[in-house]
Amino acid sequence: MPQLPCRFRHAALVGKYHARGIRPVLEDVAHLLVRAGLDVSLELETAQNTGMTDYPALSVQDIGKQCDVAVVLGGDGTMLATARELAPFDIPLIGINQGRLGFITDIQHKEMATALPLMLSGQYEEEKRAMLAGAVLRPNRDGGVDTIYEGFAINEVVVSRGATASMVELRAEVDGQFVANYRADGLIVASPTGSTAYSLSAGGPIMHPGLGGWVVVPIASHTLSNRPIVVPDSGTITIEIVAAKDASMNFDMQSLASLLPGDRVTVRRSAHRVRFLHPKGWNYYATLRRKLRWNEGVS
Amino acid sequence: MPQLPCRFRHAALVGKYHARGIRPVLEDVAHLLVRAGLDVSLELETAQNTGMTDYPALSVQDIGKQCDVAVVLGGDGTMLATARELAPFDIPLIGINQGRLGFITDIQHKEMATALPLMLSGQYEEEKRAMLAGAVLRPNRDGGVDTIYEGFAINEVVVSRGATASMVELRAEVDGQFVANYRADGLIVASPTGSTAYSLSAGGPIMHPGLGGWVVVPIASHTLSNRPIVVPDSGTITIEIVAAKDASMNFDMQSLASLLPGDRVTVRRSAHRVRFLHPKGWNYYATLRRKLRWNEGVS
Amino acid sequence: MPQLPCRFRHAALVGKYHARGIRPVLEDVAHLLVRAGLDVSLELETAQNTGMTDYPALSVQDIGKQCDVAVVLGGDGTMLATARELAPFDIPLIGINQGRLGFITDIQHKEMATALPLMLSGQYEEEKRAMLAGAVLRPNRDGGVDTIYEGFAINEVVVSRGATASMVELRAEVDGQFVANYRADGLIVASPTGSTAYSLSAGGPIMHPGLGGWVVVPIASHTLSNRPIVVPDSGTITIEIVAAKDASMNFDMQSLASLLPGDRVTVRRSAHRVRFLHPKGWNYYATLRRKLRWNEGVS
Amino acid sequence: MPQLPCRFRHAALVGKYHARGIRPVLEDVAHLLVRAGLDVSLELETAQNTGMTDYPALSVQDIGKQCDVAVVLGGDGTMLATARELAPFDIPLIGINQGRLGFITDIQHKEMATALPLMLSGQYEEEKRAMLAGAVLRPNRDGGVDTIYEGFAINEVVVSRGATASMVELRAEVDGQFVANYRADGLIVASPTGSTAYSLSAGGPIMHPGLGGWVVVPIASHTLSNRPIVVPDSGTITIEIVAAKDASMNFDMQSLASLLPGDRVTVRRSAHRVRFLHPKGWNYYATLRRKLRWNEGVS
Repeated sequence: MPQLPCRFRHAALVGKYHARGIRPVLEDVAHLLVRAGLDVSLELETAQNTGMTDYPALSVQDIGKQCDVAVVLGGDGTMLATARELAPFDIPLIGINQGRLGFITDIQHKEMATALPLMLSGQYEEEKRAMLAGAVLRPNRDGGVDTIYEGFAINEVVVSRGATASMVELRAEVDGQFVANYRADGLIVASPTGSTAYSLSAGGPIMHPGLGGWVVVPIASHTLSNRPIVVPDSGTITIEIVAAKDASMNFDMQSLASLLPGDRVTVRRSAHRVRFLHPKGWNYYATLRRKLRWNEGVS
Repeated sequence: MPQLPCRFRHAALVGKYHARGIRPVLEDVAHLLVRAGLDVSLELETAQNTGMTDYPALSVQDIGKQCDVAVVLGGDGTMLATARELAPFDIPLIGINQGRLGFITDIQHKEMATALPLMLSGQYEEEKRAMLAGAVLRPNRDGGVDTIYEGFAINEVVVSRGATASMVELRAEVDGQFVANYRADGLIVASPTGSTAYSLSAGGPIMHPGLGGWVVVPIASHTLSNRPIVVPDSGTITIEIVAAKDASMNFDMQSLASLLPGDRVTVRRSAHRVRFLHPKGWNYYATLRRKLRWNEGVS
Repeated sequence: MPQLPCRFRHAALVGKYHARGIRPVLEDVAHLLVRAGLDVSLELETAQNTGMTDYPALSVQDIGKQCDVAVVLGGDGTMLATARELAPFDIPLIGINQGRLGFITDIQHKEMATALPLMLSGQYEEEKRAMLAGAVLRPNRDGGVDTIYEGFAINEVVVSRGATASMVELRAEVDGQFVANYRADGLIVASPTGSTAYSLSAGGPIMHPGLGGWVVVPIASHTLSNRPIVVPDSGTITIEIVAAKDASMNFDMQSLASLLPGDRVTVRRSAHRVRFLHPKGWNYYATLRRKLRWNEGVS
Repeated sequence: MPQLPCRFRHAALVGKYHARGIRPVLEDVAHLLVRAGLDVSLELETAQNTGMTDYPALSVQDIGKQCDVAVVLGGDGTMLATARELAPFDIPLIGINQGRLGFITDIQHKEMATALPLMLSGQYEEEKRAMLAGAVLRPNRDGGVDTIYEGFAINEVVVSRGATASMVELRAEVDGQFVANYRADGLIVASPTGSTAYSLSAGGPIMHPGLGGWVVVPIASHTLSNRPIVVPDSGTITIEIVAAKDASMNFDMQSLASLLPGDRVTVRRSAHRVRFLHPKGWNYYATLRRKLRWNEGVS
């Protein structure tokens, strides 16, 4: 196959560095990228963990400044973590999966030799995904409010009870309008990307990524009619901890903050969007069918 | 109270004419409208069924041409039926409810003497609701396709099995992309307005009316992972009858068409939108809380 | 393999006679049964549809009187239909499946040469499944009540709306105690065997066959807190048609009766139980895991 | 009203002692009991917390030995806690509720002057509820297993993730038969009594108290087809912690034990049953309708 002109200049390579035997696979990907005419840098921790020294190692900050595409080897979790960090830099991501395909890592390792060069030559489907920007506001002693935590989420922001609490009581508002008081295990605010993750397990609907909305899903709500609500993503969702022995919040099931009664969690649309590149012919619904095993009987 | 200047000129009055004892209530409303400075006409069937002759009777077509506001006395069902018929004419509707408040008829009869004059003077919240335009396409003998049915829905379009069938098999596409094959009792395509009606009973989420989306909800799907999907309302949803002993479709649970295998139902956003007028201070979430009895314990 | 002594004397062979190419498979099974030392008769319709004349053809009645085991070739549907007919005769059934294994037909065609002789020699797990006995009672002109329909179901009895009705209103009682008024698409009374069929699609729980209970599951109930109820199978469930434009009932999604307002459907435990024979080592939960694709990811 | 002969001899009075203003109400109840001809003792903590000294104070142990009926003033939580402690003594309980009626405390304070004397004279419905006996088994260094925790639950035993874990992986067995591996927020084993509590919020069915079964309900299961399973209460349910950063178990949402991977929680039917006394005419389904607000519209 004659080499196709490359659409990109400098690729960052990010690996799920804890996985056993990832080094030779990373080296394969790196070779592919070099052969496609790209400069290649390794994400710093990837380099340190694998001991690879053939390529410059860059911090995520420097990747953001210097690279114009990131190739991520791993599962949906690695992809989400990388995308969250790179979101401010507007760099597109390509996900390669060694194991089972994910919702967002849709190139199988064994197909990458064919798929990657085509994508790097510009034959891809670009898809932008909205991100959630969350913050925790805590009343201070001066009668004011401190922002004690800020972060981004691609999938969801979750406020939930801890192990010692039987439930939390949460008050939700949208753009200052009272929505409901929830007595539940917790409350999820999920993006379309997150709608097929934890939100789905808690009873939320699937949302197409082209939809401009979030879904607010109570977890094991005491009130049975407290069903998931899909709201426009243009506003601000506020969740106040009304009562809780023990509550916490997380972003994409990762970072964590302990919450106190009176704390308010705000969620709005981030100015940044994640850019995923998929092979030509990629199709959102085909991914749903594969991952959710539709049309394969009872399940 | 000094009379407020009226924002409207000519009101149509529509009654749930089958309800017993509706005539005196209609007369009360008519007096209120006249006192507010409006010309008043009665919807034709309302006039015929109640025997009221004090006001001109107009067909829905003529209401559309001559009136600039419609006042509907009845429940959500009457309001939906009237709004569907008046949709092409861009006339706002005000709903007055004699019984329990509905999701969209939110002025109680006993409050109307206070609420109505304020609204007619311009103190209202206007809310536009998207409508579904549906059609049934049937292959003809010449290898072409005939449009055998067309209609509008404010709540939902439903394709479902008949009494003699144990299930239907339906193939859904969005903008020509295959979504899934459903073996189920049926499939609902609901608007945000309809998301609190049949769709909710079948497991769909609540959708805020400001959301630009529809929800596609399978009814008793054989495949448990076939969960409701919220899709942007900018595209075309196509539902093909793959296999069915007996299937039909309806718009807002009313009009009905029998379907055959091979028929395709298409649903897209209507160019028309319904305009509901609410009293100042009206709030979507307050209506949800009241109708769904949130914050009142287990239910 | 030396021939094992046979536990049975006379086997009936029942085929899913509409399936293409079933005749050679039936002949294989028949040979196996003969080699195992059994007399073999064909179910009458199976004989007529396949044209097989090498074995005596018996009506289901005669099978009931003369045979002591029935071998059914087909899917769960064929097995249910046969079991319903043979239930009064207390004959055990063995199910052989040509396609995907079912919940109750758990011997694959390709394994039968090994599995069947062992089972016929007495190495099997016998499992008894409770059956539902249903009836429709209609008020007559003399102020009395006529029983207009009676039947058995292994999976479920369903009362549901027809195509022209938007919902039915049903009043449920258990042993004369009022349970609830349901406004819904319908109501399912399912046995443990039926709990993995239609009932599961409508939101019901899975019930172990050893449980002495039925589950009453509303289909798309208007009232969201109308959740499935599991009741002891020792009593009588009565469902009255309170209001319906068009309603019907069915047993195992097959037989059908049109219902009128005022009709009452009664469901109680049949005196008969179905006897299924499974290969040694058969396990209910393993069947669940396989059919519901547990432990295979998201679905 | 002439005094009715009393069926009981010695009543224990138990109060929700943290509630404000409970003392005069307790004194009212005590008078009623004395007037009915009963000896009255106060539960020890109730006496200490309210400062009431007119009646002997007895520990729960002594109540168990000396009394033949317990009258509990409070909500379902107080009733559950008292019933759990008194379960080994086979003493019937009567629940009086000052606030909203509960599922098991069904005499309103204002009705007690009428209801209580009738019940004490023997005009009651007695209802026995099954209890769960749970234990935690932990592998020790000698290759054996230690029982590190034992307790009773009337509603449910819950194994769940802590705040720092995104999910737990649990392996469930029934009578040594593998059921499923659950990746979820947790797993609930609920009795019929508990089926209207947390289990219902997590998607479980309602179970009539006469049913001999438990329901195993996953909380926010990753696998969508992992639906609630109702199993006979005659066996032993074992839940093994396969993987968890942080997991715990509780009985009736109260007592708590931290769990480690490898720990096994066993649940079986307690030899003790709780005895609740209800006023004549009490009806399980009426309680459901009231608490779940059935037949009151959408919720």
